[in-house]
Amino acid sequence: MKNLIPNSRRNFIKTATIGTAATLSIPQIVSAAVGTSASAKKVQLSNNDIILFQGDSITDWGRDHKATEPNTSSMLGTGYAILAAAELLMKHPAKNLKIYNRGVSGNKVYQLAERWDTDCIALKPTIVSIHIGVNDFWHTLTSGYKGTIDNYIADYKALLDRTQKALPGVKLIICEPFALRGTKAVSDVWYPNFDLYRKAAKDIAEQYNLPFVPYQSVFDKALQSGGDANYWTIDGVHPSVAGAKLMAQAWLEAVKG
Amino acid sequence: MKNLIPNSRRNFIKTATIGTAATLSIPQIVSAAVGTSASAKKVQLSNNDIILFQGDSITDWGRDHKATEPNTSSMLGTGYAILAAAELLMKHPAKNLKIYNRGVSGNKVYQLAERWDTDCIALKPTIVSIHIGVNDFWHTLTSGYKGTIDNYIADYKALLDRTQKALPGVKLIICEPFALRGTKAVSDVWYPNFDLYRKAAKDIAEQYNLPFVPYQSVFDKALQSGGDANYWTIDGVHPSVAGAKLMAQAWLEAVKG
Repeated sequence: MKNLIPNSRRNFIKTATIGTAATLSIPQIVSAAVGTSASAKKVQLSNNDIILFQGDSITDWGRDHKATEPNTSSMLGTGYAILAAAELLMKHPAKNLKIYNRGVSGNKVYQLAERWDTDCIALKPTIVSIHIGVNDFWHTLTSGYKGTIDNYIADYKALLDRTQKALPGVKLIICEPFALRGTKAVSDVWYPNFDLYRKAAKDIAEQYNLPFVPYQSVFDKALQSGGDANYWTIDGVHPSVAGAKLMAQAWLEAVKG
Repeated sequence: MKNLIPNSRRNFIKTATIGTAATLSIPQIVSAAVGTSASAKKVQLSNNDIILFQGDSITDWGRDHKATEPNTSSMLGTGYAILAAAELLMKHPAKNLKIYNRGVSGNKVYQLAERWDTDCIALKPTIVSIHIGVNDFWHTLTSGYKGTIDNYIADYKALLDRTQKALPGVKLIICEPFALRGTKAVSDVWYPNFDLYRKAAKDIAEQYNLPFVPYQSVFDKALQSGGDANYWTIDGVHPSVAGAKLMAQAWLEAVKG
């Protein structure tokens, strides 16, 4: 079934982006931020796709770790994953999608690797969305974590190589780590080092020719249109409900139905 | 801030509805089902609105009953309430909205009345959305409940009168009870009696000149476009994630920003 709205909407955005950010609605801002990104690749949604959201607490958010059934609120939680999944499930009732969330709070990229056989490969996903990196930096400040940006990059690439080998043809989506200053968790001490993790994720997406969801740009643009960092996030790291919806909108731009 | 997308989208829908259901996307179907409803009134969203979702398990769905902070996933749960709230919070960052969910599983309309002082009036809401009625019928089959359709109507009207008296100028939204056959919970024995509750809710909305969210029509139309009753609901009464998103889309059509 052809979804005509996104096309008309996208054409509209092209025109609308001539204006300033202040005159655009938030959904338009999201489209503009994602659409003008250098690597605005998308994955094609197919019948019987098995979609896996992977990441840290931002992804984990409210899910029941004992849930086994895809497409349920227990599985998906209350964060961006359920907001994005709900839209896909509503729009594509005939596609027989199965959507899982296996984000785990506190995870860094090496911890995804530790549980990847069980929490990724065994599910036989056809689309894997990975959002990881904020803890790889944050825990160096708060928990004495000794990993470096080089570890992050090497571990991330090894994870992608392993995934592509185990799941030939898998469609991967790389999501940008983000942080908002002026909040409980994020201060100037984060910079410029945290930006290396954002850049690394983007570089990896480009090197692997994968869609990249530019969450930092999307949040930065949203900050210009009402709502400060404490509106869009709880603490600068974890999104509010408004911020989770912003993420879901940005994420959905990486998928074409 | 003017939101241009909904306007262009609505104009598009006008054109699109000339086609058949099979060629329309689900969001278009929702708009068409709501837009052609006889009572397509809307409430106007204003700055500082305090929005309350009230109802039974369909509204309650996954919320933490101890949560006190509006706009949080703990408060809002994992059902249509958070999906609708997330969209409002994302689209209107400058409006200072406060959104609460106080649905309680198993509730019938008289049980809303029992807890109305605490769970509605005390919150001083400016917009109250009420979705109640399926248990007023269902529990006559399953739990020996003796209430009749006349009780439902009288109790519902008394609740609205009381709300309008306690909260002058409150913007009310009446949501249709719905059920889908061919499911675990809903069989032919429900009909035609269950339809009286749907009609009663609609009649009350018309008598009080209030927006009405026609969930049954929306689900009925969605059934024509892929996905059966067990796709859109878990048991015919409780929506799946896909069904909750369908409800949120329909609910949002009752609000203009």
